[in-house]
Amino acid sequence: DQVVQSMEDASPTRWHLAHTTWFFETLVLKPSLPGYRPINHAFEYLFNSYYNSLGAQFPRPQRGLLTRPTVAEVMAYREHVDRAMLELLESAQERELQDVITLGMHHEQQHQELMVTDLKHLLSLNPLFPSYRATEKAAIVEVQPLGWVHRPEGLVEIGHAGDGFAYDNEGPRHRTFAEAFALGDRLITCGEYQQFIDDGGYRTADLWLADGWSIVEQEGWDAPLYWLELDGGWETFTLSGLRDLNPSEPVCHVSYYEADAFARWSGARLPTEAEWELVAKDARTAGNFVESERFHPVPLSRKPDAAATQVFGGVWEWTQSPYTPYPGYRPPAGALGEYNSKFMSSQMVLRGGSCATPASHIRATYRNFFAPSKRWQFTGIRLAR
Amino acid sequence: DQVVQSMEDASPTRWHLAHTTWFFETLVLKPSLPGYRPINHAFEYLFNSYYNSLGAQFPRPQRGLLTRPTVAEVMAYREHVDRAMLELLESAQERELQDVITLGMHHEQQHQELMVTDLKHLLSLNPLFPSYRATEKAAIVEVQPLGWVHRPEGLVEIGHAGDGFAYDNEGPRHRTFAEAFALGDRLITCGEYQQFIDDGGYRTADLWLADGWSIVEQEGWDAPLYWLELDGGWETFTLSGLRDLNPSEPVCHVSYYEADAFARWSGARLPTEAEWELVAKDARTAGNFVESERFHPVPLSRKPDAAATQVFGGVWEWTQSPYTPYPGYRPPAGALGEYNSKFMSSQMVLRGGSCATPASHIRATYRNFFAPSKRWQFTGIRLAR
Amino acid sequence: DQVVQSMEDASPTRWHLAHTTWFFETLVLKPSLPGYRPINHAFEYLFNSYYNSLGAQFPRPQRGLLTRPTVAEVMAYREHVDRAMLELLESAQERELQDVITLGMHHEQQHQELMVTDLKHLLSLNPLFPSYRATEKAAIVEVQPLGWVHRPEGLVEIGHAGDGFAYDNEGPRHRTFAEAFALGDRLITCGEYQQFIDDGGYRTADLWLADGWSIVEQEGWDAPLYWLELDGGWETFTLSGLRDLNPSEPVCHVSYYEADAFARWSGARLPTEAEWELVAKDARTAGNFVESERFHPVPLSRKPDAAATQVFGGVWEWTQSPYTPYPGYRPPAGALGEYNSKFMSSQMVLRGGSCATPASHIRATYRNFFAPSKRWQFTGIRLAR
Amino acid sequence: DQVVQSMEDASPTRWHLAHTTWFFETLVLKPSLPGYRPINHAFEYLFNSYYNSLGAQFPRPQRGLLTRPTVAEVMAYREHVDRAMLELLESAQERELQDVITLGMHHEQQHQELMVTDLKHLLSLNPLFPSYRATEKAAIVEVQPLGWVHRPEGLVEIGHAGDGFAYDNEGPRHRTFAEAFALGDRLITCGEYQQFIDDGGYRTADLWLADGWSIVEQEGWDAPLYWLELDGGWETFTLSGLRDLNPSEPVCHVSYYEADAFARWSGARLPTEAEWELVAKDARTAGNFVESERFHPVPLSRKPDAAATQVFGGVWEWTQSPYTPYPGYRPPAGALGEYNSKFMSSQMVLRGGSCATPASHIRATYRNFFAPSKRWQFTGIRLAR
Repeated sequence: DQVVQSMEDASPTRWHLAHTTWFFETLVLKPSLPGYRPINHAFEYLFNSYYNSLGAQFPRPQRGLLTRPTVAEVMAYREHVDRAMLELLESAQERELQDVITLGMHHEQQHQELMVTDLKHLLSLNPLFPSYRATEKAAIVEVQPLGWVHRPEGLVEIGHAGDGFAYDNEGPRHRTFAEAFALGDRLITCGEYQQFIDDGGYRTADLWLADGWSIVEQEGWDAPLYWLELDGGWETFTLSGLRDLNPSEPVCHVSYYEADAFARWSGARLPTEAEWELVAKDARTAGNFVESERFHPVPLSRKPDAAATQVFGGVWEWTQSPYTPYPGYRPPAGALGEYNSKFMSSQMVLRGGSCATPASHIRATYRNFFAPSKRWQFTGIRLAR
Repeated sequence: DQVVQSMEDASPTRWHLAHTTWFFETLVLKPSLPGYRPINHAFEYLFNSYYNSLGAQFPRPQRGLLTRPTVAEVMAYREHVDRAMLELLESAQERELQDVITLGMHHEQQHQELMVTDLKHLLSLNPLFPSYRATEKAAIVEVQPLGWVHRPEGLVEIGHAGDGFAYDNEGPRHRTFAEAFALGDRLITCGEYQQFIDDGGYRTADLWLADGWSIVEQEGWDAPLYWLELDGGWETFTLSGLRDLNPSEPVCHVSYYEADAFARWSGARLPTEAEWELVAKDARTAGNFVESERFHPVPLSRKPDAAATQVFGGVWEWTQSPYTPYPGYRPPAGALGEYNSKFMSSQMVLRGGSCATPASHIRATYRNFFAPSKRWQFTGIRLAR
Repeated sequence: DQVVQSMEDASPTRWHLAHTTWFFETLVLKPSLPGYRPINHAFEYLFNSYYNSLGAQFPRPQRGLLTRPTVAEVMAYREHVDRAMLELLESAQERELQDVITLGMHHEQQHQELMVTDLKHLLSLNPLFPSYRATEKAAIVEVQPLGWVHRPEGLVEIGHAGDGFAYDNEGPRHRTFAEAFALGDRLITCGEYQQFIDDGGYRTADLWLADGWSIVEQEGWDAPLYWLELDGGWETFTLSGLRDLNPSEPVCHVSYYEADAFARWSGARLPTEAEWELVAKDARTAGNFVESERFHPVPLSRKPDAAATQVFGGVWEWTQSPYTPYPGYRPPAGALGEYNSKFMSSQMVLRGGSCATPASHIRATYRNFFAPSKRWQFTGIRLAR
Repeated sequence: DQVVQSMEDASPTRWHLAHTTWFFETLVLKPSLPGYRPINHAFEYLFNSYYNSLGAQFPRPQRGLLTRPTVAEVMAYREHVDRAMLELLESAQERELQDVITLGMHHEQQHQELMVTDLKHLLSLNPLFPSYRATEKAAIVEVQPLGWVHRPEGLVEIGHAGDGFAYDNEGPRHRTFAEAFALGDRLITCGEYQQFIDDGGYRTADLWLADGWSIVEQEGWDAPLYWLELDGGWETFTLSGLRDLNPSEPVCHVSYYEADAFARWSGARLPTEAEWELVAKDARTAGNFVESERFHPVPLSRKPDAAATQVFGGVWEWTQSPYTPYPGYRPPAGALGEYNSKFMSSQMVLRGGSCATPASHIRATYRNFFAPSKRWQFTGIRLAR
């Protein structure tokens, strides 16, 4: 399971384990630990993801063709680098390196999430529908009608400022004008999404952006990724194997195009990232994160009060905002300038984290981004109007 | 020349002529002129571009496979529809239909521009480099150093309002907050762009968005479209055949990725569409439009004063703004709702019109849009900072 | 109709006209007519089909992107070369050049056939189903049961020898051992082929070669090319437009895979090219050739006697023989060595000529060859056992 | 190493192990062992290679996406089936099943060879160039000039007849006429092939079949597969890692197109399969087979006498014969009819076995077949004239 690459977007677990180690080796140990000796110079090439300023990269679509170094050798690589990192952390230089080491840990958290989503995709392709880990099934709960959290128009500020860690793309904090808006007080459920399907959502061109409709026609999309219609009923593939669809769960594994079409069908729209952030900064950050080891969104077990719920964890929420630089944004100098900024085209911002995200990784200003056609992340829908 | 389709993005002249006629037939004559008889019912299918609500469409990539109806038959189709339109315009119903007829004329202007750009692409593929029309060569002029037009920060309004014609995507007029900015007072020239090339612009990954760099590597881009390096000197293909590159001309046929990379290399950035519009509303609308029959951008023949120049005509100017709906935007009901709104993903806004645009077609609020990789339109660069 | 290229296998009429002229210009006039001046040196590149020894070739899939030289200019090119050929033929050198000039005329005949088949393909893609030329419909006749022409086993000779023109690939004449066999005394009809379809021929994997079955599944083949099932009945596209299928006509536009599957279904097999030739050398060469201007196979209007019928003209007959060199074959020296020999892999031999072949072009030793998946030629079925 | 699929032509080791077991389970145990219980019914689908008559098949290009059943589970599957086979073999029915069980063992031998070649391909893609097993390097020996084994013309017999095992495609034994010919008395060496390269073999179009030249141009072929030019000298990837090229070794991993081009360059040709077989039936069958565990061809260590050498083992020898049925051939009834016959198009016959073939698997009448472009098998060159 750790070796195979299921599609170009995904990477083998083995690769994630080596790449996050490579990050510390390349950006911390080689420049800063005198006398550090790499295990294998070829790893510099093999496990560079996309940093052109750090040299050539082994082609991404071929990551699954590498059976060597083996998983055991990768684990030895990790131990080698861990030992060197401990040595470095104990030395006097630690303070100067704090920023890049902290970044390396957040980077590793991102790959922890990808290990979950990439493994799910791999296992989903197997007609045996293997279970990664048995979990208890969530009960079907009664879903409260969708309510709305209102905000007045105004010149507001969004973006990160202050002392805690944030990625460069979350700043600078800046002013923006927001019209009055309302944000859905919970996520859209599978049951609601089924109504969209039953109402012909996937057969009604005028609900869709043109790019989305092309994919619907070419790929034959008729439901979210991992949904299977068996004997007339919907099932969904999870990391615990095939499960009956729970209509009270947040809908998950939808593309931006599906989220947008659903919103149009329901007479609403998706929020901008500013709208989302304005509400999220007041929301509780407790949620269903990877630490729960459920690896799946869960129904909302209590009646929502006036506040927005399910804001953090569960599923990433598509916004209608393309991923672009904030006003005044400048990428960092050097290799770390490639971390976020070069992807600022043709992608959409997602907010809030998912059931595969580490809890300490997320915050209200966090900007995730994926191409609008992608579905293998835990991505869902919150409406605005 | 009127029959062949040179690539999926382009259409044969013959098709443009028939499609613009189809527009009036389908959206005006069939619903509104009693007793109107179409020449051929199959044209409804053959010349529908992308309106799902008006039925199936002949596949776009195969438009060039249709040799019938012939060009002569298409001209007869146009006369047939023109006669019926005149009949309709003389009747009492004319006032109610004014909006869709006006739209049909603007629609035809858009296809007039596409006929020029699509024909240029077709002829460019021919090793004989045919000339569509002989024109006088523009003299090489001395280019003034780039100056800047400054605007202070503020809550401003952009978008169309009022009585004149505008497309639905230009509204609603709305407030947005703009930081203080400066806009280049003229377009970037071929000479300046050559410096970018000579400085290794196409070989320096960290100047590029990741998607752009992928194309540079895959397609081997090393200059704008239609530039050829012959015997050590650059030439460029124009509708008057191959020409020596004029360094004082505005650079043209660059993708968004190239415009963005050039801006980064020069230490500036591309403007947002709001910034562009704030300056453009005060600029003169005279310019180098299709009526000049030069079909090519021309050098700026006089010293720019404090105002922005070359704002309208010449080349379309890439902005850094993705093409998204303005706050509060709602697409029109019916087929015309498909005209603009369904393309609001993965495209960038361009402003100002080009040497292939009819002069009466353009205005400060006009939003054109193309995918960031496209180069066959007359697209150029204005900087901001 | 003369400009567009409908697929990579086909070429525009305009190109055929220029290429056959290029053949005489390049292989006859330039080397042999002192003072010959080409109209345009670029034609050497533009109209070279595949002769590597004669320089680079304009890419085959892009032949349809050339709108210049125009059809009128190509006709002027032909006149220019015709005049020079007449001048040459009147001169003393004529005798030495006889072989290559004769070859050039046979070459032109091959392209005459391709003009018919390529144009048919182009028009077939148009939903208007245009007619190239009106022809009288063939009557439905009563088809006699299939009879067999028997030959005993023996060491036999096949291949061309003697004085008349033949392509290099028809020789050397050589011995081969043939088992006793029987050859069908007529072609398979559309009515017989319909029985194969009705019996599930296109849904029964074990009737097919593996490569053929892959295409059936990928392309969704369920009938010969140009057959359409409309309102429950089969029609077929001809150069006279759509026609009701005539069950007594020879079936046409089948691939080798379909011919082979039909033969297996019927309990027979396809003939080897040796078997075909042994019978054909005694058959009458009268047939339905391009000069009839029917451009379509016709039913057999008389009761077959003991002899084989429909051997020449009508449809090309797939043999089970891969196209390989005869024992002792050597390609000619120089550019003409590329004419036939370099295609001797992955193609099958067809025999007998079709309704698009000039009558004087065909003979019993003639070896045509196409890839087993191709269907746009007039290709049909004769059985053996 | 056992899980990954390196290309569509290859399969993971894990899959080969399961598929050969599936063969016995499906074709022997299920029909013939009363009470046999499969471990998992899904294996019927997952491990069916291409037998349409045995139901649907898991798509070949996705074999490497299956990480379950794991290697351990596949080994348990093999034990399960082995136990049942032993039970069956001890029962009274054994005699009736002898043919299919024998076939199953030869089938497994074929997959033993594929495991070697597929693993070599997988490891070759890894920039670490892993060694599967260390072996001693072969010494460079002096190569004797190529000699020729002559045979007179005559009506001869080829093909299998008699009692021993043979595949259906080796019969029926039949007469064929052979012209007088001479067969090379040894294989072509790497040193000789290097002369072809140095003489511009890969840059000279007229040495190549058209299909081959297309691949040379598209793929940039300039040497056999697994040859690398490092620091000016050729190395070759072997299952013992990278090795300096040994010029006295038989050249290996060439396509039919390369073998054919080499033969043309050398003024000879490739043999027909009949010519090869006529000489091979008198040759010694001792050779370099998989049991040697060298997994690589070895130089000829002694002076060849008048007889042909290196006929069996070492490398498969391309013949100029397309893979077609022998006269009178009929495929077996049922699923086993799919074993060989449906591949009888667009492939070439190879003879003699390789260093990856089990010694008991090969014989003079054995017909192997691959598409002419394939290079990952141990395929080499013997000339004829």
